[in-house]
Amino acid sequence: MAASSSLTLSQAILAPPTSHGSNPPPSDRLFLPIFSLPTYSGLKSTPSTPSSHPTRSPTTSRRRLYSLRPVRSSAAVETLPKTDTALLEKSINTIRFLAIDAVEKANSGHPGLPMGCAPMGHILYDELMRYNPKNPYWFNRDRFVLSAGHGCMLQYALLHLAGYDSIKEEDLKGFRQWGSKTPGHPENFETPGVEVTTGPLGQGIANAVGLALAEKHLAARFNKPDSEIVDHYTYVILGDGCQMEGIANEACSLAGHWGLGKLIAFYDDNHISIDGDTEIAFTESVDTRFEGLGWHVIWVKNGNTGYDEIRAAIKEAKTVKDKPTLIKVTTTIGYGSPNKANSYSVHGSALGAKEVDATRKNLGWPYEPFHVPEDVKKYFLINVLAFFSHIGIGAAMSLRVLLLKLSGMLNLPNMRRNIKEEASELKSIISGELPAGWEKALPTYTPESPADATRNLSQQCLNALAKVLPGFLGGSADLASSNMTLLKMFGDFQKNTPEERNLRFGVREHGMGAICNGIAHHTPGLIPYCATFFVFTDYMRAAIRISALSEAGVIYVMTHDSIGLGEDGPTHQPIEHLASFRAMPNILMLRPADGNETAGAYKVAILNRKRPSILALSRQKLPQLPGTSVEGVEKGGYIVSDNSSGNKPDVILIGTGSELEIASKAADELRKEGKAVRLVSFISWELFDEQSNAYKESVLPEAVTARVSIEAGTTFGWEKIVGTKGKAIGIDRFGASAPAGKIYKEFGITAEAVVAAAKALC
Amino acid sequence: MAASSSLTLSQAILAPPTSHGSNPPPSDRLFLPIFSLPTYSGLKSTPSTPSSHPTRSPTTSRRRLYSLRPVRSSAAVETLPKTDTALLEKSINTIRFLAIDAVEKANSGHPGLPMGCAPMGHILYDELMRYNPKNPYWFNRDRFVLSAGHGCMLQYALLHLAGYDSIKEEDLKGFRQWGSKTPGHPENFETPGVEVTTGPLGQGIANAVGLALAEKHLAARFNKPDSEIVDHYTYVILGDGCQMEGIANEACSLAGHWGLGKLIAFYDDNHISIDGDTEIAFTESVDTRFEGLGWHVIWVKNGNTGYDEIRAAIKEAKTVKDKPTLIKVTTTIGYGSPNKANSYSVHGSALGAKEVDATRKNLGWPYEPFHVPEDVKKYFLINVLAFFSHIGIGAAMSLRVLLLKLSGMLNLPNMRRNIKEEASELKSIISGELPAGWEKALPTYTPESPADATRNLSQQCLNALAKVLPGFLGGSADLASSNMTLLKMFGDFQKNTPEERNLRFGVREHGMGAICNGIAHHTPGLIPYCATFFVFTDYMRAAIRISALSEAGVIYVMTHDSIGLGEDGPTHQPIEHLASFRAMPNILMLRPADGNETAGAYKVAILNRKRPSILALSRQKLPQLPGTSVEGVEKGGYIVSDNSSGNKPDVILIGTGSELEIASKAADELRKEGKAVRLVSFISWELFDEQSNAYKESVLPEAVTARVSIEAGTTFGWEKIVGTKGKAIGIDRFGASAPAGKIYKEFGITAEAVVAAAKALC
Repeated sequence: MAASSSLTLSQAILAPPTSHGSNPPPSDRLFLPIFSLPTYSGLKSTPSTPSSHPTRSPTTSRRRLYSLRPVRSSAAVETLPKTDTALLEKSINTIRFLAIDAVEKANSGHPGLPMGCAPMGHILYDELMRYNPKNPYWFNRDRFVLSAGHGCMLQYALLHLAGYDSIKEEDLKGFRQWGSKTPGHPENFETPGVEVTTGPLGQGIANAVGLALAEKHLAARFNKPDSEIVDHYTYVILGDGCQMEGIANEACSLAGHWGLGKLIAFYDDNHISIDGDTEIAFTESVDTRFEGLGWHVIWVKNGNTGYDEIRAAIKEAKTVKDKPTLIKVTTTIGYGSPNKANSYSVHGSALGAKEVDATRKNLGWPYEPFHVPEDVKKYFLINVLAFFSHIGIGAAMSLRVLLLKLSGMLNLPNMRRNIKEEASELKSIISGELPAGWEKALPTYTPESPADATRNLSQQCLNALAKVLPGFLGGSADLASSNMTLLKMFGDFQKNTPEERNLRFGVREHGMGAICNGIAHHTPGLIPYCATFFVFTDYMRAAIRISALSEAGVIYVMTHDSIGLGEDGPTHQPIEHLASFRAMPNILMLRPADGNETAGAYKVAILNRKRPSILALSRQKLPQLPGTSVEGVEKGGYIVSDNSSGNKPDVILIGTGSELEIASKAADELRKEGKAVRLVSFISWELFDEQSNAYKESVLPEAVTARVSIEAGTTFGWEKIVGTKGKAIGIDRFGASAPAGKIYKEFGITAEAVVAAAKALC
Repeated sequence: MAASSSLTLSQAILAPPTSHGSNPPPSDRLFLPIFSLPTYSGLKSTPSTPSSHPTRSPTTSRRRLYSLRPVRSSAAVETLPKTDTALLEKSINTIRFLAIDAVEKANSGHPGLPMGCAPMGHILYDELMRYNPKNPYWFNRDRFVLSAGHGCMLQYALLHLAGYDSIKEEDLKGFRQWGSKTPGHPENFETPGVEVTTGPLGQGIANAVGLALAEKHLAARFNKPDSEIVDHYTYVILGDGCQMEGIANEACSLAGHWGLGKLIAFYDDNHISIDGDTEIAFTESVDTRFEGLGWHVIWVKNGNTGYDEIRAAIKEAKTVKDKPTLIKVTTTIGYGSPNKANSYSVHGSALGAKEVDATRKNLGWPYEPFHVPEDVKKYFLINVLAFFSHIGIGAAMSLRVLLLKLSGMLNLPNMRRNIKEEASELKSIISGELPAGWEKALPTYTPESPADATRNLSQQCLNALAKVLPGFLGGSADLASSNMTLLKMFGDFQKNTPEERNLRFGVREHGMGAICNGIAHHTPGLIPYCATFFVFTDYMRAAIRISALSEAGVIYVMTHDSIGLGEDGPTHQPIEHLASFRAMPNILMLRPADGNETAGAYKVAILNRKRPSILALSRQKLPQLPGTSVEGVEKGGYIVSDNSSGNKPDVILIGTGSELEIASKAADELRKEGKAVRLVSFISWELFDEQSNAYKESVLPEAVTARVSIEAGTTFGWEKIVGTKGKAIGIDRFGASAPAGKIYKEFGITAEAVVAAAKALC
């Protein structure tokens, strides 16, 4: 086997990886492009003997020669050579038939897109992209996103040809089956080589904007003039469906605004969506719209066989450095199928045995299902090997130089900050290892600390964390001054100041969430947060769900979390939102009551790198309550105060967030009247669920059925906590426009109501 | 008082209004523009003595003269006259100061937009729009939507000046206070004269697309060459915030596609959003984007004082009949405030006493807060009165002719359908009265009817309803062939076939929902439905919430409602969605189990005209179960089968939708083993909640704590039904990509699991 050894020189420079709660890959694997080379049974050639390629033409040889040069950045003006067209087409048809065969075997899936987009996909994976199939998490890889995720067989076929271990032949045969690495839509958490989770349309292009943003940000922070350690492209394929979704417009407007020149999106312009010709619902000029959004737009008129057109478009895109590029590639959906191409029938169903045969004849494909011809294997793999031997080592050398610098072994003038600090920041970002003792930066409070809104306390936490977490960045959807999310020590991330960390999303909640998913998935140590009013999670719910599903530890800072926002009225007052997120899998819904709980919520959120957190925060001032604690928060529900003994209170009062104060007042009142009252804060149902039965019993003893909860939101779900004999006080109607105190009183969210309910129970 | 009598001639033609469950205004009020004239104390002039207007200029007189002509349609090419500019500006300043004063008194609200948009708002309400302040629901009124809903004081001031009873001086003084008609954002259900509920950005412009669609559709169906009974414009004001939201792009793309020529949107281009200058997040070319979307675009460079520019733009917009028009009006936010204009500080906070004084000086405003000068009152009202006397009667006459025709008293050639039928259809649409016996059209099923997916059974219901409900129309977000939502007897609503009833929304779920809200609010008898996969309610949740809040009886047809969709995997499989809607106020979440329950769900949905319904429907086949019924559905939860006596079953099994079959199988199994088992269908928690305690006890007796529920979704919330001693079987994780049967088995959603749980309890 060819060079299977790792690069010990660079490893020697790197600190050894340390373990981490969320188990990121060891940091050296993330730094370095190369670990071991891919192998194929039957593959004889190696990169050092390119002439052994059986069908190599002189043109191809020039290309191979080209790829020996350790280029980057200048790649934007490279001359892309022509290749052996017959073999190229055979290779492209391999992708088409892998897709056809897998969908046919599963009798489920979407063959149309892979058949139409195989040429552009092939050119990307075979000729342009930098990646390492044996180390899919190599930090500086080019990112590829299939925003039209239903066409995932395109990506699986490409990953297979490129030699990713995640997609073997048996994985292709297991397409859409239980436990396979080839689910019905691309899922990053299932399949190494897949960057993000797509399928819900429009999410992928917005994720890609986040990936490109991350690259631009990190490059601005860590690249040095002679050592561009962060330097990759982000490629996307999106279809008509993505283009129609509002989220795509939001994200692309931001990409244009931010000037993300290394974002290159291929728009699969095939004129077909599920309901038929796009003429029935989509007749806008996408080109004109994208020009309005500040993109460079190129039209490839023949995406089916215009390989040089595609290559030239990419070349042109790379010359445009201050704008993202949309390459509109006109293709035929289901290209090659004589009777179903260019129709919706090939979009989302198996072709059927008869049409598969017809397509085989039409494209001259004599092979068995799932067969990859030997010459295609070699043809595709040669590039990967060339990358290993040359580009890869070039990149590794570049890394070495940077690391030496960052380690303080070289002393350059005009460095912004302490070099050692920069080295440690970069390592933390790439590895995802949090700096030791980071949590000590979080503020602490005593009951004597001034009352404050949790949105303001949140701002104290955000600013404290930004000082100690090098990958912490984020912003608001045009509500920074209401959400209190500005990082005071940093400026705005903008086109010309990409090293800064305050993101300005504009009023684009959905795009914001999906962009943050992209940032989180770019590099383990990037920790994005984003903010709006809690009620407007409705605008971004699809993106939040993908955070949860795809294990992106985005932090959602959601202020104005109840009727407590007052006069803006019911359109702005969340009611059902807490319950709706408590019902969502793999997400933490946190509603802190004061300063210590806010700090605790942030501690939990930062530690949960594979689970998003939503912090529901108040607009209104709240007192610092005696008995709240970070440790309590970590358990989800805990005793704040108690005058009972023997785990037998007369009544348990349970509150969350701004209503913990009310419950506390009621507890005082009841205790004055001689009752044994336990006050429980229930900041996170999910965390409480994860505690031991013994702990749960210590907080909510089964024998005590006299329980009263209070929360300024729906009572839906509270039966679980208060039981059938308890009482949940909440709001099961829409809110109202009036000063907050008035609404609380009119809706009965009061200490008096809690006292009355408690007395009725004990 | 001037002509306070109603138009008895037209009344005589109309059938008397009949009562209706959702209490729409009597149909004659909806048909007729005029009932009684507005009055103002101090108003002396009448339309018949226009010269009594104290400051009337010759130009103004010409204008008055103009409005005596009974014009419509030709209005598009009318010559808009100039008016007395000093008085016009005084009138505009009245709006500004009403907004300033109301925000100041409430110490809460958004003065900036009303101050900047007062000129365009004034020209719309005073010079152009056709409406009747004494009959806000007159069917053929021009519609106005303030998409930038935070600027609602603009609309309240305009409604006040126009003489709407809903906005008296005391209402302005009660701005944002408990119980007032002037909540913090416009709410149609609180304030007659407000068409839709806005505030969440982007919703209003999408609602407006729905309003304009409804006009185009009804005009195409019911207008006759010499009697254009349906003929109005839809005007919108939207700001930078709306423009950034993806939903706005979705809806505007459709408006362009549909060629909604009578939709005229004013884009308040003030360069300021909450976070400051739009330069920080919004630098796209909106003009270019809208040209790409197929709109006609006009730029009014001086929206602050360029009254003739605004008028000319509207005139031009009306000449463009095949495209909607965006009038970009560059304004100064907070115009008139010497120190705060053109800054974010005037966007969402009271000016403060000092700046109010400075603004008064700057604009030469000597009056007390909330004062409307007499000459302004008269100036504004003259137009309304002129409308009453002339345009109004013209419209009424036109109505009379149409009604005569439709009543079969005139006999025109080439009528499409039976005239009597058309008359009755139009009356039903305008009044919201459902045709007698409509529910008999719903299909019925027996246990012998073939098994079928509820999405297919839904299609049978949709097509049955379309035959009997003249205002029934709708469609899918590019999933018509999966959601099974096509109405087979109709074609597609398109630019040139607007009389048809299948709406093709493209992949634009959010826009779809908001457009349907607009359709529903256009006319009581329009009943829109819309469809996508249930999981993608996440994309449109903000619009669904506005359906619920604003009392729009939209029907959401949501198929592929669980892991039962199989191979598409977790991105497409709803888990938390049922719970998330059960938690939302004023919405019906219905999950039918078979044909009879699907028909029952539609019956409930149609009857609930002020509450939206969501139908969760299966992709997979389900048997027709013995014991299901429409009557049962209407109670929300009911006994499907029972072998117990004395209301004392050993165990109660509860299922919904596709899992009722599983529960039924488990019941059979347990009964074979001698158990007394009650099987309950729980199709709608909301409807069950509304039943009497006696009924609830008859279904779920308190004494029977052995209860097992099964539903292929989160168990969150089920404690309410099964109690602390019962068992909820469900799915508290994300789904998986595999054939449906496999996932059901792996996740334990099986009859065996139900049997085991039941045995553990009884």
